[in-house]
Amino acid sequence: MNRRSDCPVSCILEVVGDTWTLLLMRDILFLDKHRYDEFLNSPEGISSNVLTNRLHQMEKSGLIEKVPYSNHRYRFSYTATEKGQDLKPVLKAMSTWGFKHCENAKTPEEILGRGKNV
Amino acid sequence: MNRRSDCPVSCILEVVGDTWTLLLMRDILFLDKHRYDEFLNSPEGISSNVLTNRLHQMEKSGLIEKVPYSNHRYRFSYTATEKGQDLKPVLKAMSTWGFKHCENAKTPEEILGRGKNV
Repeated sequence: MNRRSDCPVSCILEVVGDTWTLLLMRDILFLDKHRYDEFLNSPEGISSNVLTNRLHQMEKSGLIEKVPYSNHRYRFSYTATEKGQDLKPVLKAMSTWGFKHCENAKTPEEILGRGKNV
Repeated sequence: MNRRSDCPVSCILEVVGDTWTLLLMRDILFLDKHRYDEFLNSPEGISSNVLTNRLHQMEKSGLIEKVPYSNHRYRFSYTATEKGQDLKPVLKAMSTWGFKHCENAKTPEEILGRGKNV
């Protein structure tokens, strides 16, 4: 992998610098979402082709792993690896900033009437 | 501003979701860089047109402010506002992740032989 630099901030941004990647990690780590259709229904409205691409990239980067569910050969449940779990403090720090500086930022409960607080 | 959702994580990503924005905030907050040519010389190799665009966006978003320096009417020093300063915990959490999961991640001192640790 051709890195821009060896700075750890630059390194993490090359893995999760994409907005959708961090929103999907939020879904998995804090909102208990693990299936393709659950991600597709998140309020940000990711498109199916972007979602497919990002899940593939995230698996390749070692942030998530997929296992088949319910005896469906082509349906998968996506869960965070240790590398993915370690993004929790990053997302928590982002959430703290968002609540302070983004007007009317809402908890998942307020947005959807369900889910866990980030 | 048309938001994708009111989730605080989504909100911060709409402000700083761009890789270069976070690298420039790193330069300002941790590496004591404040001038155009200093940003241009960072190891990630930002191009001048992207740099100009991002500095403008960051000022517009209220993350940084610019003041003329050394009696040069068109030369500016860029500093973080309170909103920008509040990104420190985000960048620190990113740095912690990077040191753990990115092989051979290096401190600024190791990369450049100068600067402060993030």
